Amino acid sequence: MANFKGHALPGSFFLLFGLWWSIKYPLLYFWRKNRSGGHVQLNPDSQRLDLIEGVVKVVFSIVGILAEQFVPDGPHLHLTQGEGHSWFKLMNWQHSTMYLFYGISGVVDILTISPLGVPLGLDRLMLSVAVFIEGFLFYFHVHNRAPLDVHIHSLLLIAVFGGAFSILLEVFQRDHFVLELFRSSLAILQGTWFWQIGFVLFPPGGGTAWDESDHDNIMFITMCFCWHYATALLIMALNYALVWCCVRRCADRTGADLELGRLMKSSKNTSQKALLQESDEE
Amino acid sequence: MANFKGHALPGSFFLLFGLWWSIKYPLLYFWRKNRSGGHVQLNPDSQRLDLIEGVVKVVFSIVGILAEQFVPDGPHLHLTQGEGHSWFKLMNWQHSTMYLFYGISGVVDILTISPLGVPLGLDRLMLSVAVFIEGFLFYFHVHNRAPLDVHIHSLLLIAVFGGAFSILLEVFQRDHFVLELFRSSLAILQGTWFWQIGFVLFPPGGGTAWDESDHDNIMFITMCFCWHYATALLIMALNYALVWCCVRRCADRTGADLELGRLMKSSKNTSQKALLQESDEE
Amino acid sequence: MANFKGHALPGSFFLLFGLWWSIKYPLLYFWRKNRSGGHVQLNPDSQRLDLIEGVVKVVFSIVGILAEQFVPDGPHLHLTQGEGHSWFKLMNWQHSTMYLFYGISGVVDILTISPLGVPLGLDRLMLSVAVFIEGFLFYFHVHNRAPLDVHIHSLLLIAVFGGAFSILLEVFQRDHFVLELFRSSLAILQGTWFWQIGFVLFPPGGGTAWDESDHDNIMFITMCFCWHYATALLIMALNYALVWCCVRRCADRTGADLELGRLMKSSKNTSQKALLQESDEE
Amino acid sequence: MANFKGHALPGSFFLLFGLWWSIKYPLLYFWRKNRSGGHVQLNPDSQRLDLIEGVVKVVFSIVGILAEQFVPDGPHLHLTQGEGHSWFKLMNWQHSTMYLFYGISGVVDILTISPLGVPLGLDRLMLSVAVFIEGFLFYFHVHNRAPLDVHIHSLLLIAVFGGAFSILLEVFQRDHFVLELFRSSLAILQGTWFWQIGFVLFPPGGGTAWDESDHDNIMFITMCFCWHYATALLIMALNYALVWCCVRRCADRTGADLELGRLMKSSKNTSQKALLQESDEE
Repeated sequence: MANFKGHALPGSFFLLFGLWWSIKYPLLYFWRKNRSGGHVQLNPDSQRLDLIEGVVKVVFSIVGILAEQFVPDGPHLHLTQGEGHSWFKLMNWQHSTMYLFYGISGVVDILTISPLGVPLGLDRLMLSVAVFIEGFLFYFHVHNRAPLDVHIHSLLLIAVFGGAFSILLEVFQRDHFVLELFRSSLAILQGTWFWQIGFVLFPPGGGTAWDESDHDNIMFITMCFCWHYATALLIMALNYALVWCCVRRCADRTGADLELGRLMKSSKNTSQKALLQESDEE
Repeated sequence: MANFKGHALPGSFFLLFGLWWSIKYPLLYFWRKNRSGGHVQLNPDSQRLDLIEGVVKVVFSIVGILAEQFVPDGPHLHLTQGEGHSWFKLMNWQHSTMYLFYGISGVVDILTISPLGVPLGLDRLMLSVAVFIEGFLFYFHVHNRAPLDVHIHSLLLIAVFGGAFSILLEVFQRDHFVLELFRSSLAILQGTWFWQIGFVLFPPGGGTAWDESDHDNIMFITMCFCWHYATALLIMALNYALVWCCVRRCADRTGADLELGRLMKSSKNTSQKALLQESDEE
Repeated sequence: MANFKGHALPGSFFLLFGLWWSIKYPLLYFWRKNRSGGHVQLNPDSQRLDLIEGVVKVVFSIVGILAEQFVPDGPHLHLTQGEGHSWFKLMNWQHSTMYLFYGISGVVDILTISPLGVPLGLDRLMLSVAVFIEGFLFYFHVHNRAPLDVHIHSLLLIAVFGGAFSILLEVFQRDHFVLELFRSSLAILQGTWFWQIGFVLFPPGGGTAWDESDHDNIMFITMCFCWHYATALLIMALNYALVWCCVRRCADRTGADLELGRLMKSSKNTSQKALLQESDEE
Repeated sequence: MANFKGHALPGSFFLLFGLWWSIKYPLLYFWRKNRSGGHVQLNPDSQRLDLIEGVVKVVFSIVGILAEQFVPDGPHLHLTQGEGHSWFKLMNWQHSTMYLFYGISGVVDILTISPLGVPLGLDRLMLSVAVFIEGFLFYFHVHNRAPLDVHIHSLLLIAVFGGAFSILLEVFQRDHFVLELFRSSLAILQGTWFWQIGFVLFPPGGGTAWDESDHDNIMFITMCFCWHYATALLIMALNYALVWCCVRRCADRTGADLELGRLMKSSKNTSQKALLQESDEE
């Protein structure tokens, strides 16, 4: 859907996932750090979260595919048209294909938890493939358009391929907190940038269109992309701080009686670790 | 051989290897997982499989080289022609070169098992080099052709270089199941895509040729490539499920009397591991 | 600031950081090596150094942003201009954006030491992002300029993206001395190259301008870039030797009485390690 | 030196190093494998070999620099010329710069063995940088030349940048035998390809020059590059087999009396390892 809604829809999906991840991963991180002390009562069942995430991914993908196919000017599942069998509404078909791969990624997420014994890391690989396919299709998507249109989509590709690469690393470095945060920030960036593309190319409410061949506009958009990422980092930082506060408050409320025991335990561990490190370094 | 058969032949080779790998690696994976319990009677002798694979690779390569050289319009081992010593049938020579490197990879596979002490990982490196050489030759292959021809071969390059990179990773992460599955899926993709190229550029049975400069055709082919990969993933999933079922049935039939022992053993191990993990995380 | 000062300012920042790192990391390296013997009295409080570094980074960034905004011909925080709301002084805004990300990197450096529990590696990731953003903005910066101008900035990009990649590796290989030295050398290279750009494009003191489309100038500048790196390596080597001498002298002065104990300890460790290695290799 | 000798000289250097490495690394590999049994009497003092290698590298670099500067049509250390201070013989200066970085790499090789405590891995990083600089200079070297000239140098770049990347990996995976073999093969490839460039662009003995814009020549050269690599692999294999034979013969002659002891030892180790593996996999 080459209109405002066609960019707002995927933008919202990415934004939702990015925001969700920016809360989920710090939560899991603090939970892992504190588990041995028995403090935190939140105890997010990590597997159940992954299951829900997979289901939501599949649902979003189906919504996306249906929206692309059955909007009034959509292809309604027809791939060719007329007597010459010329291709019909390929744009919408390409978008459907993008959603399809996110759907596959969601299915693999679900299978990973199933008793089929799907190996860990396959879910990350499939997510990486889905993001790569998105970038791949976008790359050939913007042929023969106005310079600003090409440029604004090229910037998206940086977030997309950066994300695909970062998620690929997670195949080998699973549960690497820094990579998870990076992935979250790129998802937020993608989300807000899809909205930005919508606002620039299809100004809603009948605003004046941008001059798509003005070099100054291109320079501004380049910089604007950086500002979006700075904003994404700010949102990440706020969510992180929020989670940190919540976890601390929870811990304070429930943990007073357990504190003494934990402290003794942790100090014992620390001294053991110090000993180990010393002997390593000698 | 710039005709339908010249694409169907390598396509079939890749498809065969891809399908074989998509069965072999899950089998080895389940076998490794269950070995300690003594359940599975399949017990594939991994070394013998590798040997057979190497021999098949060498045979396929020789078939490929001979086919390229001795088809009626082939170079019949002549590199130059006429008085001016102009180059003769370079296309077929390039294809022969591609097969040659797959042959070398097969030889290294065989040597790895020999008593020569060839280090593990060299077989993967040589396979990666063979795939890279294929991509390298294709890259300079499609100079000065119609846009659709160039594009459909460029798409192949994504599968090829992706495969070369993924196999290179296997040098360092040998027996990484996710990488092995990824390699299998890319081999299937290459195989089906070679067939697709044959159908598009040289429609068999005298079908109407595609308009090679129509932008819509290029857009469709781009998307079609993604569908091929989705199909490859589906085939992989089916084969995986098939292997899973077979392994389970085998295990059920033979393993009833061994079950108790295994369970006790595994539960003991699990509790030991849990203890170890707990002490790690503290 | 498209003038000499606008290149000398960031050049000095990078040069200062590069020189500082080329002293700091060897110092930490020798300190780590000798710690167990209790020799070196320098004992640099590594955390305090990181804190100071973060604060200096933030200060430099603020200085850079203010300089770009409030020089006489700067935008004075105005983004648009006139009735048509055309963009105003985007060059300066882009430079401000570059400084902003180094500022963010500095803030993350500081937070890493705070009790917020920011994970190790995030500081490196943010530095890598900041360097990448710098390269990203420069890449789109030099559109439509003279060949020499484009080329001299492209060379900078090699140092910039090389640095971003190298720092990204540090996320996974923290405290890898070779990577730290490499980062230092690239920072020095960037610093001196910014000065070189200033001298070439805006000759101070009214020198004659270079012919910006002469191919020989481009060839010389390419080679000159290599010479800058050779110089950077020489500076690194001198600083390394300097630190080595200082550490040895310090050790000699204070360590005479501790020597015997350390020697006995280290020889004991060495023999233990030799034993361990032998059993590993068998 | 844009003539046959100017390509034969570096070609011979690379070829010598490649051949030497293709013997050295298998030797070290077998030596490491067999050391515990006390069999092999060759016992190459690895450190002394590295020292000699470093010195030879430095000597070759000085020879290269002097040859480039003081051939009859060389710049004789003059960088500018005439009144206009136009650049003088930049080609030769660029080649000198390439040799300079190999010289630096040689110096770091030597320093690594010195008591200065230069960290392991720095020698590999500097070699990687030297190879990268070579590729970097070649990349901007071939501007505005005939298509065949550009193409034949571009092919060289694949060997060069592949080598630089592979050596960079060795910073993190030191003594990885497969990477060492790969490096050796690429060095041989570079060596023979430099000779090939010489023969194509400056046919010695007054042979007829190649038509530098004939597309068929370009296609042949592309394929020829692959054949060079196949030849390099063959040479590697022969040298490997040679070393394997020598090591076995040596071992047979001297080791008869030690055999029994070793066998008992190794069989003991093997059974221990098998036990360890079993418990790992459970």
